[in-house]
Formats: sequence, structure tokens, C-alpha cells
Amino acid sequence: MAIKLAFVLFPNLTQLDFTGAVQVLSRIPGAETHVAAKTLAPVPTDCGFSIVPTTDFLTCPQADLICVPGGHGVEQALEDEDTIAFVAQQATAAKYASSVCTGALLLGAAGLLNGKKATTHWAYTSLLPLFGARHEDARVVRDGALITAGGVTAGIDFGFTVVAEIAGEAVARNIQLGLEYDPKPPFENGSPKIASPASVIKVSAGFENRVNILKSIIEKL
Amino acid sequence: MAIKLAFVLFPNLTQLDFTGAVQVLSRIPGAETHVAAKTLAPVPTDCGFSIVPTTDFLTCPQADLICVPGGHGVEQALEDEDTIAFVAQQATAAKYASSVCTGALLLGAAGLLNGKKATTHWAYTSLLPLFGARHEDARVVRDGALITAGGVTAGIDFGFTVVAEIAGEAVARNIQLGLEYDPKPPFENGSPKIASPASVIKVSAGFENRVNILKSIIEKL
Repeated sequence: MAIKLAFVLFPNLTQLDFTGAVQVLSRIPGAETHVAAKTLAPVPTDCGFSIVPTTDFLTCPQADLICVPGGHGVEQALEDEDTIAFVAQQATAAKYASSVCTGALLLGAAGLLNGKKATTHWAYTSLLPLFGARHEDARVVRDGALITAGGVTAGIDFGFTVVAEIAGEAVARNIQLGLEYDPKPPFENGSPKIASPASVIKVSAGFENRVNILKSIIEKL
Repeated sequence: MAIKLAFVLFPNLTQLDFTGAVQVLSRIPGAETHVAAKTLAPVPTDCGFSIVPTTDFLTCPQADLICVPGGHGVEQALEDEDTIAFVAQQATAAKYASSVCTGALLLGAAGLLNGKKATTHWAYTSLLPLFGARHEDARVVRDGALITAGGVTAGIDFGFTVVAEIAGEAVARNIQLGLEYDPKPPFENGSPKIASPASVIKVSAGFENRVNILKSIIEKL
């Protein structure tokens, strides 16, 4: 089962959007993992370190699954023609187009969300209809060939869902045991539905400006 | 609160051991994040891509918390004097010495596990007593200044535990909401205690040779 995976990097991505998903998906037996960016130069992440791509957009082979992470850098990536063209072009022949977090907005800019159900980071779900998508409130949402995940850490749950789809549940379970994915969050505060009201108010306020910036960028696309 | 964090990279680390923990910890307000390796050259990970360190062992400032990830590359790192010396030297003045997955073995080689309770990836817990440590069966184990986490994804739970310790529970909860850490594994197979017997047998068999190799390396240290 020689499945080809392609992940898209752009400056100032939220690195765990990518690194969580790739840790799970790259363990599919026989998987070929391509990490593609505009050039081969190291790509700075939100955590201070950079990631070196394995290929650039021009030389990346056609993938069976393309996965787009999110992060603050989505603001610039939305207006970057090469990045959007790469996503659109890969998606035409890939079996699956997928995203983690606000990577969904890049799928939207590539025309892949129109008429689809999808999700993104909880703070940004109001932006999905700007691309003709209908938000579905789930950690991982599938609509045909389109698979979108919620914010950041949802990329790990997404990974296991996709492994099961591609390679079967037994393989997904074995990878889960290998990665000791038996999460035990010390607090229950990971979604607005269960977080403390004070936390929701504070964290939402921090995202408000970002949502507005993205809205105005998307409306001009 | 200008806390200095230092993460140790070495070739062929399991990248999510590092990337999960750093995504959480680097969001502590005022945190300074240093990613240190033997040289400034990109460090290859288990997922095909490389990570660029922000500093090398010689120039990394003294950290308040040092965190060591694991992975197959631990076999070589255990015998690398520079890596072990860096861990030992940082740990003498750091407030916390910590590890994710088999990074615990590098703490052990640096003399930090002797007489302590600790944990590591479930498949490798039998190696902890070789360093004088007592395995405690928990996802995150604290013994004074020493904080060790279980395999790979445990680094995320570890991250939130440490944020709460350093910056308080309210800050940890806000970061959790920002990272949408409300895990929903599609399967319950993340530890040998809950995994299917067939999966435990198959996955354990895959680790057996690695455990034996590490045992013989550790016995010769």
C-alpha cells in the first residue's frame, strides 16, 4: 500500500497542526511522506524553530492525500498564489483533500469547500460560510473526499480517523498503541462547550482581531 | 514571568515527543524557547523532515526547564558524550529536568534518575531500573525537580501539567482552549491496559528488539 502523503508548509504555521497529523499518518505501512513548501528553505513555525521541507511545490509528486495545517500564517498564505494553486492542483487528483485547524481556510481559497460540510478551529468557524461551506460541530468532519479537523490537537484524532479509512482499523489501533495515544488532559477545558466561562471569554477575545483580519482578507479574494 | 525552556534535539528523534510538548509550553506568557542540538545543522526526525535548532549545546543559555524527547535515535544519543553532558550540565542549575517517551533514558544516562520515580514509553519501562529509577505507572510522573512523561503523545498532557505548575491552572486552561485540546480518539487502544490483546502482542513484538538493543547499550555505559 504505497500511499503518497503531501503536507503543505507556509511561514508561521502552528506547527502541531502539522506535526501531530504527520506523526500518525506517516506510520501507515508503505507511506511516502512529502513535506512541501514554496521553496526548500526552512519554514519558520509559531514555536521559534523552523522545519525543513522535503520538496517544493514544483517538484512534489501528486499525492493521494494532501493535508493543510493552519496558524496565524494563514493570513499571508491565503494571498499567496503559489500556495493556493498548489493546494488546488494537488486536490484535483488526490483521493483526499484535508486540513487541520485554520488550514480549512486555505482549502476554501482553493475552491474545495463550496457546498461542503467542514470544520476548523472553534474560534474561526464563522468564516467557513464565506467559502460556501456549512460548519459541522465535530472534531473531524468528512464530506466525500474532503476531511477537515478542528483546532491544532484535533490533527491527531484526524490522523487516526484517516489511517483507519486508508489502512483499516487494526492498523490504526496498532499505531495508536505505538504512540501511546491514551490522552489524559489534566483539565477539561479544551472546547468552548466544556471550558470555564471566564476562560472562553478571555481566549475568544484574544482571537477576535484575528477573525476580523481573516474575514476582510477572504472577502477580497 | 520570563521562564527559559530548553529542548534537546538529536538525530532520529520521534518528533511529536518534542513538538507536542513545545507547542504547549512555549505559550506560557513570557516563555523563551530554546531548541538545542549538537550543531546548528537541521536535525532529521523519524517523519522524514528535519528541524532546525535555534541554538547549539555550547551557546544555549541556562534553562529553567530542560526537556528531552525520545525516539529510536536515543540509541545513538545515549553514547554521545556531548548530548549527555549538555543534559547533565543544564539539569544542575535548571528548576526542572524533564523528558517525554524514551527521553527518560537520556536523563538516566545523565545521572538524573537514580533513586527517583519516573516513567517512559510503556514498552521501555523495564529499562528504568537500570538507571536506579522506580517505574510509576502514570502518564506524567513527578519526583521533585524531575518530571517524566509516557510515550509520544503523553508530551501534550505533560505540557499542560507543567504549565499549571509554572504559571498556574488558569493559564494552562486558557492554552488548552486555544489549542482545542479536547481529545476524542476514534479508538480506545492507546495503552496496553486498554488495547486489544492482539494489538498488544503485535506492537510489543515490534519493540522487543529495540528494548534489547537499548539494554545492552545501557549496561555498557
